[in-house]
Amino acid sequence: MRYILAVDIGGTQLRAAVYPIDEPIAIKVERIPSHAPEETVLERLVSLARHLWPPDGSVDAIGVSVAGPTDPRRGLVMTTPNIKEWTDFPLADRLQEQLGPPVYLGNDANLAALAEWQFGAGRGHHNLLYLTISTGIGGGVIVDDRLLLGEHGLAAELGHVVVDSSRSAPICGCGFRGHLEAFSSGTAIERYVATELAAGKSSSLAGRPSAKQIAEAAREGDRLAIKAFRRAGTYLGIGVANYLHIFNPSCILLGGGVSRSGSLLREPFEASLREHVFHPSYLDDLTIAYAELGDDAGLLGAFALARMRLSLEPL
Amino acid sequence: MRYILAVDIGGTQLRAAVYPIDEPIAIKVERIPSHAPEETVLERLVSLARHLWPPDGSVDAIGVSVAGPTDPRRGLVMTTPNIKEWTDFPLADRLQEQLGPPVYLGNDANLAALAEWQFGAGRGHHNLLYLTISTGIGGGVIVDDRLLLGEHGLAAELGHVVVDSSRSAPICGCGFRGHLEAFSSGTAIERYVATELAAGKSSSLAGRPSAKQIAEAAREGDRLAIKAFRRAGTYLGIGVANYLHIFNPSCILLGGGVSRSGSLLREPFEASLREHVFHPSYLDDLTIAYAELGDDAGLLGAFALARMRLSLEPL
Repeated sequence: MRYILAVDIGGTQLRAAVYPIDEPIAIKVERIPSHAPEETVLERLVSLARHLWPPDGSVDAIGVSVAGPTDPRRGLVMTTPNIKEWTDFPLADRLQEQLGPPVYLGNDANLAALAEWQFGAGRGHHNLLYLTISTGIGGGVIVDDRLLLGEHGLAAELGHVVVDSSRSAPICGCGFRGHLEAFSSGTAIERYVATELAAGKSSSLAGRPSAKQIAEAAREGDRLAIKAFRRAGTYLGIGVANYLHIFNPSCILLGGGVSRSGSLLREPFEASLREHVFHPSYLDDLTIAYAELGDDAGLLGAFALARMRLSLEPL
Repeated sequence: MRYILAVDIGGTQLRAAVYPIDEPIAIKVERIPSHAPEETVLERLVSLARHLWPPDGSVDAIGVSVAGPTDPRRGLVMTTPNIKEWTDFPLADRLQEQLGPPVYLGNDANLAALAEWQFGAGRGHHNLLYLTISTGIGGGVIVDDRLLLGEHGLAAELGHVVVDSSRSAPICGCGFRGHLEAFSSGTAIERYVATELAAGKSSSLAGRPSAKQIAEAAREGDRLAIKAFRRAGTYLGIGVANYLHIFNPSCILLGGGVSRSGSLLREPFEASLREHVFHPSYLDDLTIAYAELGDDAGLLGAFALARMRLSLEPL
């Protein structure tokens, strides 16, 4: 049997899975905390991989999904949350030295887009936009059946575009002002509500509620909570309208925790999208759907990446 | 000999040229007004093509560059300035019926990007962004050696993205508010100056000066005129920073009349670009240059398109 080993690296946990090369159904999956005393993350990752290694066959390639910016052409992790020692870190080379097979890596949101396109809600589309909306906003784009990477793999940072350049626009997690993420991420929703509460707005909420608590309050009719999701959805519609004009995709997929708030975000998002699209043709045959693969998107994307690179399919 | 016939359709004039299939040097070029009494634009175009038809060889394909949105996969002109009868018009089919060879068409800014990439200032790059800044703002993008078209050929409308969603943002030529074109096009510069003059701002200018007159006044030190270009350049920097985050290109090309204002636009543009890029890696090895092909970009892009489609190269 021939296998692909897929790895999903997050700041708090490492996940790995073994897939037969011809189907996206893992025969083994395991997760461990990213950090432990007296062990580097790399050491933990190598042990996890060896632990999962299939005894009855060969691993043809290893795919790695990493939170944060990567350089997939050179196999570098540029930065990744909570793993300080991985700055411009040649992860692909280090893993290959220790494990043997070729290693291919990519950004988690990019690879989630790849996975949704190959195995999930985006199957059959040739031009697809994927947005994951959780604490931040990440993106991935399929252009004419290929993953958009850009010159150094830094493309598709869809949360980090200015949608409001006024001086009063909120600050993004990246430190810059007016980015889509600063309006429509879970963090942005939380910050908006906290600011309004501090300014004395009446609400069933108090203090610094989480996005989940705000969603619950909204479902119970809290006007501030509803307004917070409406604002996030409105800006998301502006951002996605921009992306329709830029990419003209046939499919938009929404993933991440905040997208699971259902109509709270989705209704104002779709209303704003329709309002901001500058020609109705962009909405012709446009599918808008939720991502399907959930937590498995990273592993499946790493699997898809490794398999495509192995077969020399263009990314 | 084998030839490609290239056509460039504008609202006021039709241009056509004959190229040998193996080099981008026209052996014949001609231009005529788009409109004349008792003749349709299509009839004029067909006569122009027949007039240029090489007597000593065959035309393998016809490439057509059209101002305005097109559907290159179906050969449709959706709308084009000053030619009202061409609305969802099957131009490729009509021309092929009358002239014989296969006809391939595309949007003028897209094809200008293709031409600059193949024959002009963008040679050797794999990921390129082209912006033409004149009365409006058009765009074209090369992603991994292919022209970005999107599902229906409507991608790369780089002037029609919201960069300022505040209610006070200016209205774009398309009728929507806060688009890049509403800040950084020649029309936007003119409108800004006219509004400031009407509000009583002191300037050597008066009434409704043209972008060219404003550029002249700026070169002579007029503060309002300088400010108008600074504002246009600043927003252009915001828009292009967004495009770096979205596409991570290695080359940005600026074309169109307003880009020829030199440092007036370019200095504030580059300062704003550096200020708004959220990670310095996006500027690594980034070439920023002026487009080289000028008025020939449309014809050369049509030539490149036809030749690529003929050889079944992926667009």
